[in-house]
Amino acid sequence: MSTDPVSSSYQALHERFRRIAALDDALSVLSWDRQTIMPSGGGAARAEQIATLQVLRHEAMTADDMADLIDAAAAEALDDWRAANVREIRRAHGHATALSGALVDAQSRAAAACETVWLTARPANDFAALVEPLDALLALTREVAAAKADALGKTAYDALLDQYEPDGLAERIDSLFGRLEPALQSLLPEVLEHQARNGFQSTATEISIDRQRALGLEVMQTLGFEFEHGRLDTSAHPFSGGVPDDVRITTRYDTADWAGSLMGVIHETGHALYERGLPKAWRGQPVGAARGMTIHESQSLLMEMQVSRSRAFLDHAAPRIREVFDVEGEAWRAQPLYQATTRVSRSLIRVEADELTYPFHVILRYRLERAMLAGDLAIADLPGAWNDGLEASLGIRPPDDRQGCLQDIHWYDGAIGYFPTYTMGALAAAQLFAAARSALGDLDEQIARGDFTPLLAWLRENVHRWGSYYDTDALLQQATGAPLSEDAFLLHIRNRYLGQN
Amino acid sequence: MSTDPVSSSYQALHERFRRIAALDDALSVLSWDRQTIMPSGGGAARAEQIATLQVLRHEAMTADDMADLIDAAAAEALDDWRAANVREIRRAHGHATALSGALVDAQSRAAAACETVWLTARPANDFAALVEPLDALLALTREVAAAKADALGKTAYDALLDQYEPDGLAERIDSLFGRLEPALQSLLPEVLEHQARNGFQSTATEISIDRQRALGLEVMQTLGFEFEHGRLDTSAHPFSGGVPDDVRITTRYDTADWAGSLMGVIHETGHALYERGLPKAWRGQPVGAARGMTIHESQSLLMEMQVSRSRAFLDHAAPRIREVFDVEGEAWRAQPLYQATTRVSRSLIRVEADELTYPFHVILRYRLERAMLAGDLAIADLPGAWNDGLEASLGIRPPDDRQGCLQDIHWYDGAIGYFPTYTMGALAAAQLFAAARSALGDLDEQIARGDFTPLLAWLRENVHRWGSYYDTDALLQQATGAPLSEDAFLLHIRNRYLGQN
Repeated sequence: MSTDPVSSSYQALHERFRRIAALDDALSVLSWDRQTIMPSGGGAARAEQIATLQVLRHEAMTADDMADLIDAAAAEALDDWRAANVREIRRAHGHATALSGALVDAQSRAAAACETVWLTARPANDFAALVEPLDALLALTREVAAAKADALGKTAYDALLDQYEPDGLAERIDSLFGRLEPALQSLLPEVLEHQARNGFQSTATEISIDRQRALGLEVMQTLGFEFEHGRLDTSAHPFSGGVPDDVRITTRYDTADWAGSLMGVIHETGHALYERGLPKAWRGQPVGAARGMTIHESQSLLMEMQVSRSRAFLDHAAPRIREVFDVEGEAWRAQPLYQATTRVSRSLIRVEADELTYPFHVILRYRLERAMLAGDLAIADLPGAWNDGLEASLGIRPPDDRQGCLQDIHWYDGAIGYFPTYTMGALAAAQLFAAARSALGDLDEQIARGDFTPLLAWLRENVHRWGSYYDTDALLQQATGAPLSEDAFLLHIRNRYLGQN
Repeated sequence: MSTDPVSSSYQALHERFRRIAALDDALSVLSWDRQTIMPSGGGAARAEQIATLQVLRHEAMTADDMADLIDAAAAEALDDWRAANVREIRRAHGHATALSGALVDAQSRAAAACETVWLTARPANDFAALVEPLDALLALTREVAAAKADALGKTAYDALLDQYEPDGLAERIDSLFGRLEPALQSLLPEVLEHQARNGFQSTATEISIDRQRALGLEVMQTLGFEFEHGRLDTSAHPFSGGVPDDVRITTRYDTADWAGSLMGVIHETGHALYERGLPKAWRGQPVGAARGMTIHESQSLLMEMQVSRSRAFLDHAAPRIREVFDVEGEAWRAQPLYQATTRVSRSLIRVEADELTYPFHVILRYRLERAMLAGDLAIADLPGAWNDGLEASLGIRPPDDRQGCLQDIHWYDGAIGYFPTYTMGALAAAQLFAAARSALGDLDEQIARGDFTPLLAWLRENVHRWGSYYDTDALLQQATGAPLSEDAFLLHIRNRYLGQN
């Protein structure tokens, strides 16, 4: 795993990607700043900075001699990590060179225009206003998909998916989702009935932002977040940004919803721990970067869903919550808190959904975006297809588009191929957590006493340190003994929501 | 003042500098972040980002065809602003191309090495440890000066000065300082005697950081700082950073020294208002940038020294200070606060000096750095020369080097030619403030009632909007009717410290 020079072509490539990574890192910091602390009037200047760095990045990535350099490096005798690095470099180069500058520019402008309309159309429940801009954006996204499909030797949808989930295949997702959905459909009524029998106690009370932030910081520390390598800040939309040695997560606070902020902090901490654990020797090289959105989301969901909504975690956290929030009463004991953080319900908004019903939202979007991309679903027909689809799968129908097909920014921002990674991440999280439990034995006891060191060490060893060396399935294979499947997730759902825990 | 294309060469140059400016702006944001909120562990990654952007900037600036492009643009029929822009572009290009990459690298490494020694040598009062690294750094700085002198057709010292004060001349500084120093020497004993007769009341009391920050924000707003275009943060060394549309100033807080923080905020606000007022049509072009350190410092010192240490300002501020700090008593009324913020004393540390004795510190450094650069003063002899010099000019002798030649970072960081701009800025501030007073009539009354709109409008019109269109003297000539001189400053000192105000 050393990065000593082994050859001139490989070494030259390595150097170029170090520079490209430094540009990426600078872009990441500038973007973090824009989303958290930048005064509004700085927007135009910041856009100029970001556009300039992106142009320089693109120029470096698409330099005339880059393809030859990649071929020359690949032809050299490379060890496995260097060979994997060249493979990932070729992928990045393939995406960058597939599109003409004019197409990149046209799509990015169409996305900005469509997103701008969406920002007002959503609160106004005005889907009609979006038909034209979304149609224009989709036409360009189809061009992008076709160009990338051609360059990468993939289908159109897989070419877009590859941007978020390298080597991801719609065929494979179809088969996963095809088994997952009916299984969840049969579990859901059972779980709802089970929960109705048990009831729950509300912890709805006003908690100050200062106290919520104090608890968030404490939990981050407990989970292994290193504050000399990161920060917690506030933003309208929580995210994890920065760079591996300076990972910056954000949350938002609602004094009436402390759990939302805390779970958000834990979710982003999962992302941050992954970034921190990426292989140090490969910083700045494509093989040293995070594997893709499935694995990234698996790390956040492992912390949020598997760990922190568990009874064991709440055994540890309940006394800390009571002390930091200065609250007391039956509802603030571990079991009621556990029940409150694992409530399941049929609901309309994806980002507010519980882990059991969340996949219904994702699967619906996945099917619709494939149909839209293929031209099988006209934009004007989207609201109806959405409402019919949700009714068929989850049994509820949005009363308006604001709570239906207008709720997520993704499509209106040009992102197609992203949605399925949420649920693939949830499946991977369950699979990894089950493997960690087998390996660590008394994992629940460790969690209950607030000792996350063994779990983090296991994740570092089996997931984080591999960066992009393996593809997603191979990574899961070596970490869990099997490629991605729905089995562990369904077992987890049965255990948590129908078992005695 | 339009920036429409007028020709292909000029327009090409304009485009290139827009990209260079975007890189400069990105560097400014990354540097601000590093100095204020970056977690310590992010340092190495940030250094990589900054170095990469600097290399890209240097490559853009020194492109093979740049000199021809500048000549071609200069030969075109350009209006005055474009011609001034080409002049400033030529200056920037001259500085960038004067040095080989190897020399830039060697000097920057020598500076880093010397600064590192200084960081521990200063508290240890160990000048001996610095003789060798400072000597090595100075040798390289001489090479830099010689190369720039050759490229720019200037003397060695003037070539370094030109980096901070474009078109500045040592000859002119000699003549200014040659008149200023004896005048201040004759005023000082008189002022000290005058103040001894009047006495003063101490406002030394603990003020919480929250209250100090609240007052700082209020005063910034009152002076005209636009918070949609800037921020106030905390850093070890206060500075003004960011970009004109997102100006970020910092301060540091000491609960035992509220005046230090407040005056610091007002000083940096002066810098920020200048940046904000630079000509919008010329954003990103060299002619649209701040003129140089003399004018920049004039804007901070105008706010700090001319405005906020005036009796009129304290008439306005005293009630606000009492309310925000929740304090009362005789010492918190305008006149005692005015006396407290205008105390004069012979002291050893430049950054703590009052405005009357500050020039003695600067003039000493100016003479010593010229002698060191010329090779007329050996590094080993610096402490003695410093102590003798301060004793001769200010009448006090440092008891050790920590309070003598080790106190400032500048030389140990490779900055020669910077010091004189502090005092030239103080002279310019007095000259501009006197001109504003003549133009605005009841300026003191405006300030006393907290109305800074007319003053800011005058500065915008007469200083800020000109960017780098004029050189410093021409800018002062059109704003005040005369080039830079010591007259207004000495009159101000007599009025404030010996008069009745």
